Amino acid sequence: MKVTVLGSSSALPTSERFPSAHVLNAHERLYLIDCGEGTQMQMRKNKVRFGKINHIFISHLHGDHVFGLYGLLSTFNLMGRNSPVHLYAPANYHEMMLSHLSDFDIHLGFEIDFIALSGENSVRILDDKYLTVTSFPLDHRVSAYGFLFREKPSLRNIRKEAIEQYEIPSVRIPAIKKGEDFIAKDGSVIKNGEITIPGPKQLSYAYCSDTKYFSRLPGFIKDTDLLYHEATFDKSLSELASMTGHSTTIDAARIAREAGAGALLIGHFSARYRDINALVNEARSVFLQTFPAIDGRTYEVGNISEP
Amino acid sequence: MKVTVLGSSSALPTSERFPSAHVLNAHERLYLIDCGEGTQMQMRKNKVRFGKINHIFISHLHGDHVFGLYGLLSTFNLMGRNSPVHLYAPANYHEMMLSHLSDFDIHLGFEIDFIALSGENSVRILDDKYLTVTSFPLDHRVSAYGFLFREKPSLRNIRKEAIEQYEIPSVRIPAIKKGEDFIAKDGSVIKNGEITIPGPKQLSYAYCSDTKYFSRLPGFIKDTDLLYHEATFDKSLSELASMTGHSTTIDAARIAREAGAGALLIGHFSARYRDINALVNEARSVFLQTFPAIDGRTYEVGNISEP
Repeated sequence: MKVTVLGSSSALPTSERFPSAHVLNAHERLYLIDCGEGTQMQMRKNKVRFGKINHIFISHLHGDHVFGLYGLLSTFNLMGRNSPVHLYAPANYHEMMLSHLSDFDIHLGFEIDFIALSGENSVRILDDKYLTVTSFPLDHRVSAYGFLFREKPSLRNIRKEAIEQYEIPSVRIPAIKKGEDFIAKDGSVIKNGEITIPGPKQLSYAYCSDTKYFSRLPGFIKDTDLLYHEATFDKSLSELASMTGHSTTIDAARIAREAGAGALLIGHFSARYRDINALVNEARSVFLQTFPAIDGRTYEVGNISEP
Repeated sequence: MKVTVLGSSSALPTSERFPSAHVLNAHERLYLIDCGEGTQMQMRKNKVRFGKINHIFISHLHGDHVFGLYGLLSTFNLMGRNSPVHLYAPANYHEMMLSHLSDFDIHLGFEIDFIALSGENSVRILDDKYLTVTSFPLDHRVSAYGFLFREKPSLRNIRKEAIEQYEIPSVRIPAIKKGEDFIAKDGSVIKNGEITIPGPKQLSYAYCSDTKYFSRLPGFIKDTDLLYHEATFDKSLSELASMTGHSTTIDAARIAREAGAGALLIGHFSARYRDINALVNEARSVFLQTFPAIDGRTYEVGNISEP
């Protein structure tokens, strides 16, 4: 899995930073998370393939997370799309969106499958071949949700020597990869653990924006490999952060530490910061594996290193 | 007067071309015409000063002309704006816009002075110190309006020699510049034409997008110095143009010729065209002074030359 940042600004974009949008690539399927103004232009610039996006997740209904959606849907339409778009957004958005599309004379030639986000707990909202996705509440000025993308358990790998040693027929291999034991010719049971090794680690990516420090968050995203958490403000502005429903660098880093995250990506930076190194350094004082979200950069989940 | 193109694409933006938006600079006052998605980012990139924009003109309610408006208004808000924005848009947009702003939890700290566009004729919609602006109907799939920005008559310049010759006191100069005659000490009347020369030429800029070929247009924009007219398609696609309410290169050039325009700027190019030189050449076969709208480029009204 890898995630490409298309926008890392908060509400006020700068010449370097567009508003929020991430694209998660999991097994060559693309998942768009938030869709701030200009997302479709950033997709073109970064060669993100429009036809590969079937799922769009909108964290909340503030413009810097959703103003790019109508343009993107219009573009899908103009490109002749006919496969459905699965749209995950706060429940009250469904009717609103249909009315906005109609106001702007947009008649989609494809279906929007609307999945309403709601509730005070973690909810599984998607379960496909490779991933499960759960949504969970954040603590912002309006209803807002985070998302956890978790790879499904991968198949175990059979040791080559075991295949020879126990004369395992190929027809049995799929079951063994799934964890079954093997019954040898002489009737003896060979424990799965003796003939297989674990497959690749299941990775997970958590997206948390916008939110103030929220003590329930670590419970929703325990041990995630990569946590994206907003850090709109530096630590000196914690009151402003709290007042506006946002986090400081330290808030984000605390969540990463408490969740046992593998790495932390911070973004949604206030336009007041030209140089974001200071923000990263603040977060690192609490959580060392912190990296900045930068427009157009791709981060490998489970394997982020200093650029 | 000069006009900066912030977006020259039609509905489907490309990596080179953002959707429609122009900024007219007239005597250091800025007038924003259309506001497609990403306009505020293009403004930042091209160092257009947000605080100098007090008038926004929306030609029609298709997304590629208006999806950038909410982001821009939000940004004005975040920048602490308190002076009103005068918004000129089709009449039915007023209520719609207020409802959209409320849907997205946007509470503006400044007033929107909404001026409704309507009617089948040329209407004066703005009259300020330097300019008059008229709107006029276009022929598109939905109600759409063009705009003509015309400089007010400038003051005449008094010839220096005349001041000496007739001993004109400085207190009389403002009236003479406005065209009054001068009564000399001996009571003789000196005709204004004898002591002044005309001031700078009054320039005008016309913006026509989106529209199919519309025979009434030249009458609305007679002798304009610079005409921006959409040319979504090349001449081979005239049926598609007509069906979708758009113009070909030839349509745009005919309007320029019939209006007696000084120069023609074409834009709103379909994403199918990578190289727009062929489009410009087509238009030049009918109207020689044709130039392409290019994102980020500024054109001097009354003095466009090949870049």
